Amino acid sequence: MACEGAPEVRIGQKPVMNYVLAILTTLMEQGVDRVVIKARGRNINKAVDAVEIVKSRFAKNVVVEDISIGSQEVMVKNPQTGEERPRRVSGIEICLKRE
Amino acid sequence: MACEGAPEVRIGQKPVMNYVLAILTTLMEQGVDRVVIKARGRNINKAVDAVEIVKSRFAKNVVVEDISIGSQEVMVKNPQTGEERPRRVSGIEICLKRE
Repeated sequence: MACEGAPEVRIGQKPVMNYVLAILTTLMEQGVDRVVIKARGRNINKAVDAVEIVKSRFAKNVVVEDISIGSQEVMVKNPQTGEERPRRVSGIEICLKRE
Repeated sequence: MACEGAPEVRIGQKPVMNYVLAILTTLMEQGVDRVVIKARGRNINKAVDAVEIVKSRFAKNVVVEDISIGSQEVMVKNPQTGEERPRRVSGIEICLKRE
């Protein structure tokens, strides 16, 4: 992937603008011209939203260099029985580049 | 995009397995070796899920050829006032190829 070794922003439960800010400040750091945005499960659409907001509203010189999707097995605990089971979770990685 | 002219599966409100089935049946049609999966807003993660389920569980010979993201302005009606306002909605297009 093009973003190998680039700093990453991991999308979680917070409002999308928090991640927009994180992406922008990361891209403003000295010596950084790429950032990789990672998200899993329900946060995937928030990752796409954050990237689109960065591109359309704040940094017109930022382009999507690469996108990959994949899935991972994670252990999920049943809250009733306490039993752990493997569950497939989808993920996305979006590599952004400042031009 | 690589999937230019390919049949499309548009991800909506139904359960993810409906779209998995739609993708598989489309790829089984005669003369079809590519399908493009399109989704907007909250359905983006369902699109990624559907693709990952197709790849990991049903069709090992299917690969992701291209992924693109973008956004569109759509008019959204305020249910209280009936007023229409433009709103940015993110989207994803995933091009799948049967090898």
